[in-house]
Amino acid sequence: MRYSKYFIPTYKETPTEAEVISHQLMLRAGMIRKLTSGVYTFLPIGLKSVRKVENIIREEMNRSGGIEVLMPAVHPAELWKESGRWDFYGKELLRFRDRNNHEACLAPTHEEVITDLVRREIHSYKQLPVNFYQIQFKFRDEIRPRFGVMRCREFIMKDGYTFDIDEAGADKSYEIMRRTYSRIFQRCGLKFKVVEADSGSIGGSFSQEFMVLAETGEDQIVTCSKCEYAANMERAEVRWDVDRSSSSRESLKPLEEVQTPNMRTVEEVTSFLSISPQELVKTLIFKTDRQVVAALIRGDHEVNEVKLKNLLAADSVELADPGLVAEVTGAPMGFAGPVGLKVKMIADNALKGMANFVTGGNKEDVHFIHTNTERDFIVDQFADLRVIMPGDHCPRCRGELQFKRGIGHVFKLGTKYSKPLRAVYLDQNGEEKVIIMGTYGIGVARTVAAAIEQNHDQDGMIFPIPIAPFEVAVLPLQLYQSEVVAAAERIYTELLDQKIDVLLDDRDVRPGVKFKDADLLGTPLRITLSEKTVKEGKLEIKVRSERTVSLIPLASASAVIIQKVKDLYGSAE
Amino acid sequence: MRYSKYFIPTYKETPTEAEVISHQLMLRAGMIRKLTSGVYTFLPIGLKSVRKVENIIREEMNRSGGIEVLMPAVHPAELWKESGRWDFYGKELLRFRDRNNHEACLAPTHEEVITDLVRREIHSYKQLPVNFYQIQFKFRDEIRPRFGVMRCREFIMKDGYTFDIDEAGADKSYEIMRRTYSRIFQRCGLKFKVVEADSGSIGGSFSQEFMVLAETGEDQIVTCSKCEYAANMERAEVRWDVDRSSSSRESLKPLEEVQTPNMRTVEEVTSFLSISPQELVKTLIFKTDRQVVAALIRGDHEVNEVKLKNLLAADSVELADPGLVAEVTGAPMGFAGPVGLKVKMIADNALKGMANFVTGGNKEDVHFIHTNTERDFIVDQFADLRVIMPGDHCPRCRGELQFKRGIGHVFKLGTKYSKPLRAVYLDQNGEEKVIIMGTYGIGVARTVAAAIEQNHDQDGMIFPIPIAPFEVAVLPLQLYQSEVVAAAERIYTELLDQKIDVLLDDRDVRPGVKFKDADLLGTPLRITLSEKTVKEGKLEIKVRSERTVSLIPLASASAVIIQKVKDLYGSAE
Repeated sequence: MRYSKYFIPTYKETPTEAEVISHQLMLRAGMIRKLTSGVYTFLPIGLKSVRKVENIIREEMNRSGGIEVLMPAVHPAELWKESGRWDFYGKELLRFRDRNNHEACLAPTHEEVITDLVRREIHSYKQLPVNFYQIQFKFRDEIRPRFGVMRCREFIMKDGYTFDIDEAGADKSYEIMRRTYSRIFQRCGLKFKVVEADSGSIGGSFSQEFMVLAETGEDQIVTCSKCEYAANMERAEVRWDVDRSSSSRESLKPLEEVQTPNMRTVEEVTSFLSISPQELVKTLIFKTDRQVVAALIRGDHEVNEVKLKNLLAADSVELADPGLVAEVTGAPMGFAGPVGLKVKMIADNALKGMANFVTGGNKEDVHFIHTNTERDFIVDQFADLRVIMPGDHCPRCRGELQFKRGIGHVFKLGTKYSKPLRAVYLDQNGEEKVIIMGTYGIGVARTVAAAIEQNHDQDGMIFPIPIAPFEVAVLPLQLYQSEVVAAAERIYTELLDQKIDVLLDDRDVRPGVKFKDADLLGTPLRITLSEKTVKEGKLEIKVRSERTVSLIPLASASAVIIQKVKDLYGSAE
Repeated sequence: MRYSKYFIPTYKETPTEAEVISHQLMLRAGMIRKLTSGVYTFLPIGLKSVRKVENIIREEMNRSGGIEVLMPAVHPAELWKESGRWDFYGKELLRFRDRNNHEACLAPTHEEVITDLVRREIHSYKQLPVNFYQIQFKFRDEIRPRFGVMRCREFIMKDGYTFDIDEAGADKSYEIMRRTYSRIFQRCGLKFKVVEADSGSIGGSFSQEFMVLAETGEDQIVTCSKCEYAANMERAEVRWDVDRSSSSRESLKPLEEVQTPNMRTVEEVTSFLSISPQELVKTLIFKTDRQVVAALIRGDHEVNEVKLKNLLAADSVELADPGLVAEVTGAPMGFAGPVGLKVKMIADNALKGMANFVTGGNKEDVHFIHTNTERDFIVDQFADLRVIMPGDHCPRCRGELQFKRGIGHVFKLGTKYSKPLRAVYLDQNGEEKVIIMGTYGIGVARTVAAAIEQNHDQDGMIFPIPIAPFEVAVLPLQLYQSEVVAAAERIYTELLDQKIDVLLDDRDVRPGVKFKDADLLGTPLRITLSEKTVKEGKLEIKVRSERTVSLIPLASASAVIIQKVKDLYGSAE
């Protein structure tokens, strides 16, 4: 590809809205652009990387006996009602009505649709096992999309589904998929770890997540640097050490009402009262499918809804709307507190060591200071209720924790979908049995982002060659020198002939700009032709991840470059 | 691919819900399955054909300088409001609100999003012209989806957009795309015709549609068998011949009210009164952006809303809802009539020759018989208001008309989107100018369906080889004969080694089943190995579109087959 005929709009500056490095670099390198919250357009080189990941996935899935299909993005509500998820999926399921007033949703996943297909088309043990997959966009209406394509609303996913006659078969299928996923991520050049995970909205008995080892951020797993402990954020246990909170209980001061006009958020209240968030307790009203509860949590902590849901053995948990908050607390949003509250109260373990803290007053524009448990209100249950965060220690060995990101997830589903949807088969004796399922997902663009999280430096991305937008960049530095241009054109053509994916930087810009963009784009191999080197019958070759450059003879350059590309593929895996 | 490890659920019977041959055959051959109205899952071989069309499109678009991107399916309402289409697109634009109550829609097309990208990233004449395209699913909430993937709601489309500095450049880009489209459809092995078309919801000054020549049905163009006249259904003029309606006006009978209890549809009323639909006049109330009108049309005809919209110079036209109908006519839906109606009345030309017809009574359960124009009501305007239909003659030369289907559409847009969205550039003199656009679409799955419409016989599909799910089918007839199996396996492997796309029918079923399925699937080349031929050191080769079979020596069979595949590619174009 000729740079001048292509579209790679790069930025010099780091975009302020991007918090993590992959998001910053994908914007800067012109891989993606945001259309609206959590929804991105893939620009040419972003799409190229995505397609390379897709092709690796497709090859490995086919090799493992996967059969590719393509299911729709718009699903009728009926199917989701049949499986029971219409009521329990929560607000991430985007629902709407079509022009004929039929309820439908944008698919966040496809268990219902593939199970519907199977129940219609598969009736005998002779047709099993079967393994379907697709590469299709999904939509999950995340409440807080962030980190670019790492956690967005519309995203490209490879999802796969296995169907077996019994548990033993399902275990085998699961194991094949787990190995296939390992091969896929290896081929993408990623360093990863497989950890036990919470099964979330997908459900089932057991699941494991493929996590990329990278730096801090959200949407991650935690692994212990000392012991073998690893878990995803939703499941990671928080170790409660009494010595880490305000150790011995201070003398209790009298409960006092204070005016906090229009101060609702932790930030507003703490800054108004000149206290730290650690001295405040948030009271969050949650509604489950069975009851209303209050979750009490320290001002600097966040409630882990998965933990709350599991603790309450609820099918769904969501934050109460303003109407319910008013009903329960007698006050508008922002002033809820535990004193005098009539609903069940669950407190995070961190509250055990706290004294004289600030809480909402259950009255508009009012908070309490010097609130204390037992004296002022009774906690029904203390539990590990919060999201683990940097600074927390390993729940097993107190070691340092590291935070990483998830790119793939494999689930044993059992009969969670096949039973309500009645996907059955006749066994060898003519008896009807329920099909056993597994489900498997890979975030395609997220895999690209994870590779960038794992491979970059201060100058830009350092792509593993199998998923790099281009394998080789050819930089002729002086376009006014016909020898330089001719040599570059010849190398470019020879590489293209050998099916090498080359970007020829034929732009009439300063050498510095070409070098900067080549580094930013992270092309694994950079070939530079300058007036000086060409006169000497040479060109410069540099591997993006290495510091050294070497000069090689122009005459045999293509062969050397092609070999180097092969070597890079070898070392990527 | 081994048939036994794959998923091709075929039917023997023609599904009753499918009206056109491509829909019937795609269901029967296991290419697609319906999920809900106008929404389909692509099964493995359906997806294979789709991907082959996509690859041809991609190669030809890239060859013409197209740059591939991937835009989201969910669009924020703001952009559509900026372009003005939020109000004018009608009900095909599926709108919804996300969890944060933001208005959004499922994209039926991407002019807004690509123009938004261009206005942000392109600022200088040096960056123009540019040609972006994507292959992405679209959603159009069709009121009456039918014909399988020929007219569905969720569909895969290649859409492209050109951006030029002036009209001359835009004309050149348009011409390049027109030629590219011709090459694409040629490579897909389709016979097609390019005709002038109505620009519809996309808009712009001029558009042409690529129509596949095939048999009757809807969603088509009409071409004259005698002269050069060709137009799409929306634009096709209906020739009004006085001698084709009830020629001379009968003597007028007195207007009479009759009771028609709960008879609302043309079918109900005509069967109740024992008349033909040609003796009834439908009165349809339409609401435009400016006024309410009644359209009068013969019972067996259909209103062409595009013609009505153009006639009224309206931005939008839609059927009135029951409330408005009641307000205008004083009666519930199903009983509207022209007698005593106060709104503007437009009548189709066919009414000119009618006398003593049946109309609604503007009262519940009442119709009039022996209604006549002039005497009973005054028509404000007669016009060509209806959809052309089989039996109509060429408006130019009265020749026979043929009906065909559209698979691609190219539009000159001018500044329809770039002006409201302010997509501008600085010219060589530093002056700000508005970018000139073109837009281009291909229905990907529709192209597959069109190929089937054009190429089939009573036994099934006859795919053009470039888009066939498989290029070659190998049929070992007796699996208990090890020589047959060994020879088939050898041929299979040799063909795979040469990158031929082969289906090995290794199922343990009767030869008749294998032959029937091979014909149904329409694989261009069928290789048969039987006990008898293998003993003679031969196999049988048959081209799907030809009647004759020939025997060739087993030893050199692969080379012969590979050559035959090449020949078929040659003759497909």
